[in-house]
Amino acid sequence: MKFTVLREELLKNLQIASRAIAAKNPIPVLANFKLVMNEKGLTILSSNNELSIVTRVPMVIQGKTILSDIEEGGTLVNAKLFTDIARKVEGESLTVELFDGTVVHVSDGRSTYKLNSVKVEEYPELDVDAAGVRLDIASKVLKKVVEQTAFAASTKEQRPIMTAVNLDVGEGKLVATATDSARLSRKEVVIDSPVKFTANVPAKTLVDVVGLLDNEDQVTLSTTDKRITFEFGTTMLISRLVGGEYPNTANIIPKTTNFALVANAKELMAALERVALLSVERENVIKFTLSETSVEVSSKSAQVGSASEALTHFSFNGDKFEISFNAGYLMEAIRAADAEDVKIGFLGEMRPFVIKNDKDDSLVQLATPVRTY
Amino acid sequence: MKFTVLREELLKNLQIASRAIAAKNPIPVLANFKLVMNEKGLTILSSNNELSIVTRVPMVIQGKTILSDIEEGGTLVNAKLFTDIARKVEGESLTVELFDGTVVHVSDGRSTYKLNSVKVEEYPELDVDAAGVRLDIASKVLKKVVEQTAFAASTKEQRPIMTAVNLDVGEGKLVATATDSARLSRKEVVIDSPVKFTANVPAKTLVDVVGLLDNEDQVTLSTTDKRITFEFGTTMLISRLVGGEYPNTANIIPKTTNFALVANAKELMAALERVALLSVERENVIKFTLSETSVEVSSKSAQVGSASEALTHFSFNGDKFEISFNAGYLMEAIRAADAEDVKIGFLGEMRPFVIKNDKDDSLVQLATPVRTY
Repeated sequence: MKFTVLREELLKNLQIASRAIAAKNPIPVLANFKLVMNEKGLTILSSNNELSIVTRVPMVIQGKTILSDIEEGGTLVNAKLFTDIARKVEGESLTVELFDGTVVHVSDGRSTYKLNSVKVEEYPELDVDAAGVRLDIASKVLKKVVEQTAFAASTKEQRPIMTAVNLDVGEGKLVATATDSARLSRKEVVIDSPVKFTANVPAKTLVDVVGLLDNEDQVTLSTTDKRITFEFGTTMLISRLVGGEYPNTANIIPKTTNFALVANAKELMAALERVALLSVERENVIKFTLSETSVEVSSKSAQVGSASEALTHFSFNGDKFEISFNAGYLMEAIRAADAEDVKIGFLGEMRPFVIKNDKDDSLVQLATPVRTY
Repeated sequence: MKFTVLREELLKNLQIASRAIAAKNPIPVLANFKLVMNEKGLTILSSNNELSIVTRVPMVIQGKTILSDIEEGGTLVNAKLFTDIARKVEGESLTVELFDGTVVHVSDGRSTYKLNSVKVEEYPELDVDAAGVRLDIASKVLKKVVEQTAFAASTKEQRPIMTAVNLDVGEGKLVATATDSARLSRKEVVIDSPVKFTANVPAKTLVDVVGLLDNEDQVTLSTTDKRITFEFGTTMLISRLVGGEYPNTANIIPKTTNFALVANAKELMAALERVALLSVERENVIKFTLSETSVEVSSKSAQVGSASEALTHFSFNGDKFEISFNAGYLMEAIRAADAEDVKIGFLGEMRPFVIKNDKDDSLVQLATPVRTY
């Protein structure tokens, strides 16, 4: 195996493939990239068993030669080291050559690295074909869906299904739902496709995917009941799905609420941040005291003291009412709502409340109040 | 106690005083600032037992009223909380008032905080008078001295004396020396003063002091045999000195060296950073292979491979010669030398070598080679 490659293009693809390299991996061989050089270009493969990435440096991009002086073949190289080298050397192009099947020489003409390598055959066979139902979706739509839902998934592994975002596609729409059982986020977008599927995708996978979509207009999802594939440009991500039934959340979301607070999102956010300074004992518990004439945001700690602030821009259509909640959850919900005015609908002191963008019904969020004494 | 203060001036002083607030302090009362309001202004005092800070918000700065509506008195307030509040509120001024000697109300007119407070009498009596021999020094001179030496002090507590920078003042010069026993840095500057003293100042204290010198032209040091005081503007830092005799380092620094490498600092630095990528087993060991016609920087790891690079800008006046060393130490020394061309003088393969700015003799650094097999 041998090739000379424009360093910038190589580095771009190594950084993409690095997303599937785990910091600590129980399978040592997966600390490597699998490099395969053939007439299609240089393919870089990485995997952490849950997520695999295949990305290709093409021979030519828009008439510009990217790869030259090639000999077909393959090898494994330490992913972190190879990426660090490609980042730190100064030359415009890098020559990579496998010697005796055991040492990879990497040089930019100035520095020379000789990396002990592992035979390409030692890499596990990964099933990296796109299979199953296919759906094309605009990158910016998928990005928004992920930004507005993935944060609400659980980061704890006790109930693996809660670490997923449930994608439910059918009847011309995609509904994404994430919940960690104390709060929920549900986004609905119209899609121009007759396909139908449901998939529980690890929230982390979705965040990785949208983090890589900077230069691509469109992404193609393919899913079977075991895995999902995302294709864009010359890159493909393959992720396992989370097994098990996603909780039925449709009935949790109230159709109507009894009273609603409409508040300026920026002002409310700043007030929550300030008042949260004093909620040190029970992490982040904050109280709303609501009436038609005033909205007070407050917190109290037996140890350090109390804080309160009155909102100046709001409307509230109900009787005097108090509710306590986790400030962090409400702040994340307000951020996701991406609204000038946020609308918070209440059913009662101990009932989940609904957070929305006052001008957009595509996103519905739910948070559970906290009992205070 | 009561005052209304321009928030910006308060915050500036709280941030200064925060440097002496430890994240975890075995003495709970030291998590507080001591606030004292009197006719001189608002004095803020903090301490972690090793380092104490006294800083004052004056009544007036250049004709501008900073403090108004005052009632004399004092209290303790939680340092982190009070600083966070002063940072996060939005008002231009902040009113602080002590009620019943137990609750401090803080308000910018919009948000109100009621902080449980501790009586000012509970704060330990700290001796914060400047005493002993005095030396005035330009801030930028002290800054340079600290930047070029403090990093070489030890961060390990096994031998406390090595965590200090030795300041030796006399005969119209200040000599600062720091060493962790594997490397040493020694800076000499001329001072316009007949005073004479020697003091082992915690390196951390010096870094804190110069971090606060942004707007001050001059700083006054005062030292007894137990402590050192730094005064600038309306701020004073008081630090204990490290007890014990500083090692005699004068004889360690070679007067002459047998051969010297002069290299472009930038090129050498970049080469060290790249080649260090491959020194993964013995942390950061790198080898120079020197001759009059070539300088090779290389590293080798049985596990991952090897790296090498030839310098293009250098001169070396000696026989072929190899030496191995800790790349991190040499990189820090090159950075401290602040030179276009760095000069590295050698005595032999296993003898400490000398690193200098080729055009400046005020800084001498020493590093110990590493044995390789």
